[in-house]
Amino acid sequence: MSEPINRQIVLASRPVGKPQPSDFKLQESSIPTPQEGEVLCRTRYLSLDPYMRGRMSSSKSYAAPVEINGVLTGGTVGEVIESKFAELQAGDIVFGYGGWQDYWVLKGKSLNKVDPEVAPISTATGVLGMPGVTAYTGLLNIGQPKKGETVVVAAASGAVGSVVGQIARIKGARAVGIAGSVEKCEFVTKELGFDYCVNHKSPEFAEELKNACPDGIDVYFENVGGKVFEAVLHMLNEFARIPVCGMISMYNATELPAGPNLIPSLMRKILVKRLTIRGFIVWDFASQEKEALQQLTEWIQQGKLVYKEDIVDGIENAPEAFIGLLEGKNFGKLVVRVS
Amino acid sequence: MSEPINRQIVLASRPVGKPQPSDFKLQESSIPTPQEGEVLCRTRYLSLDPYMRGRMSSSKSYAAPVEINGVLTGGTVGEVIESKFAELQAGDIVFGYGGWQDYWVLKGKSLNKVDPEVAPISTATGVLGMPGVTAYTGLLNIGQPKKGETVVVAAASGAVGSVVGQIARIKGARAVGIAGSVEKCEFVTKELGFDYCVNHKSPEFAEELKNACPDGIDVYFENVGGKVFEAVLHMLNEFARIPVCGMISMYNATELPAGPNLIPSLMRKILVKRLTIRGFIVWDFASQEKEALQQLTEWIQQGKLVYKEDIVDGIENAPEAFIGLLEGKNFGKLVVRVS
Repeated sequence: MSEPINRQIVLASRPVGKPQPSDFKLQESSIPTPQEGEVLCRTRYLSLDPYMRGRMSSSKSYAAPVEINGVLTGGTVGEVIESKFAELQAGDIVFGYGGWQDYWVLKGKSLNKVDPEVAPISTATGVLGMPGVTAYTGLLNIGQPKKGETVVVAAASGAVGSVVGQIARIKGARAVGIAGSVEKCEFVTKELGFDYCVNHKSPEFAEELKNACPDGIDVYFENVGGKVFEAVLHMLNEFARIPVCGMISMYNATELPAGPNLIPSLMRKILVKRLTIRGFIVWDFASQEKEALQQLTEWIQQGKLVYKEDIVDGIENAPEAFIGLLEGKNFGKLVVRVS
Repeated sequence: MSEPINRQIVLASRPVGKPQPSDFKLQESSIPTPQEGEVLCRTRYLSLDPYMRGRMSSSKSYAAPVEINGVLTGGTVGEVIESKFAELQAGDIVFGYGGWQDYWVLKGKSLNKVDPEVAPISTATGVLGMPGVTAYTGLLNIGQPKKGETVVVAAASGAVGSVVGQIARIKGARAVGIAGSVEKCEFVTKELGFDYCVNHKSPEFAEELKNACPDGIDVYFENVGGKVFEAVLHMLNEFARIPVCGMISMYNATELPAGPNLIPSLMRKILVKRLTIRGFIVWDFASQEKEALQQLTEWIQQGKLVYKEDIVDGIENAPEAFIGLLEGKNFGKLVVRVS
């Protein structure tokens, strides 16, 4: 039996615009050894999420960029192989930021135990993980949907958007999704139960969105930016709330869009309609994580919250899957099955 | 003795860009007669405020535009001449939206009684009126300055800005003003007690603002827009708050600024820095008006809050004064002494 090896995907070069396969490099390294308080895990699932594009760039953000030749950042569901941390033992399933690799060592206290009885363990990267908590905390703290209000959700079939719209419905609001294909839109209405879903690739997108929101928009959960944001802007009601958690349509942009500069018209809207636009990341609501996960689990068990995963096999396929994610090629929460 | 006449200033034409004297017309009309529940007042002071530019335009806003040949909207301090409203009597001083005219009739219950013992009655158009309450409610509800934080205030010598910075100081924050002349900046620091004031007409404005805010900006009270907003944007700290109550630099604009379109970079800032940008108008906090006026009065009496008025004589001079207001020619709260 050969010695196990640790396959890792590192950042070969900083992508300019759309990432290319050559920006990633698969390398092999030895299995790390845990020290006191640490745990060695083998990756079962690697989460692929849009925020990772930011980590590949050197520009300043809320987290440090990945170094060139550094293992790419990523949330992972792992099985404990060896534990030097009292609260975990071999065979336990945990979630941690292990990165794009087969094996990783992290401090035991940085890991969350995953209960395989509750739901498939891969959901710890999605509906029962960072994307689910992002949706829950962003929508409820900033969006604050009220009964009868209209909540518009971009990237509605994705990991975050799918949860946002379903919670909006649970809270008694109307949920209108925006997605990138007829098939996705059908899924959003039929499976996720949104009231309506509009295809942003339709030539009549703005018109269709207007028809889907006859009473205007009270909450717009922003995670795409660009033309979707501009279409929404004209339909916002007084006192509308816009939680901003991403803008995937801009992540590969190498330059700003052509003029005119629309900031004055945005600011005028903010004033005249008394809008609230507020950026957040999931860590800002860290104290609500436990409550969020409990509630999301309960809704899943009650059948009120459904989810869809897009599972890709093999860590070597992660770069291509990630490149596709930024173009909306995934359908549901994108996860790589690693072992 | 000749019959008194009612001089009125009406909107002759909708201004395109900077208002021209020809957009206004002085006309004479008869004195209106109060019906049951109404009060006839003679204007003592007419308030001139930037928001009026919006009422002269036909574009949709939070209030209906003034009609062509309609008397211009304006807050007025008036003396009761004849009352058919039980709670007011001739000689009382009241504040109401009488408009740009000598005499007006309004429902008694729409008027606020002004106490001449507390402060000069003209202050009911400024520090003890709409601008003061705007500053108080916008800063405390949205800006929420904390001890040691840096609050930047545009139009710092104006009716709203001057109060914002002084309240920030009272709450233990550092107040940095932005104003349009050396003389105004001196007033802002020496008389109003701001920690610093930067002249936005200086060629090194952005650099000077940076020097004035070594710890970045936690609250930016926005009432001017344009290049001031852009300079501030690069200096905002994580979780900074931006109450938006106006953007005077844009009110006369006839077209949007040239590109590129900076909305994506603004949205990225909102996300990465987790900013809150929220528009408001004073009516949104109507329930806090009484509390605000009590507190502002107390601070004036304690000498903690000072104010400056720029008084112009004669209703016939209101158009020119208003045109100047949009160009920052006033120094302090602009009021027209009418009688």
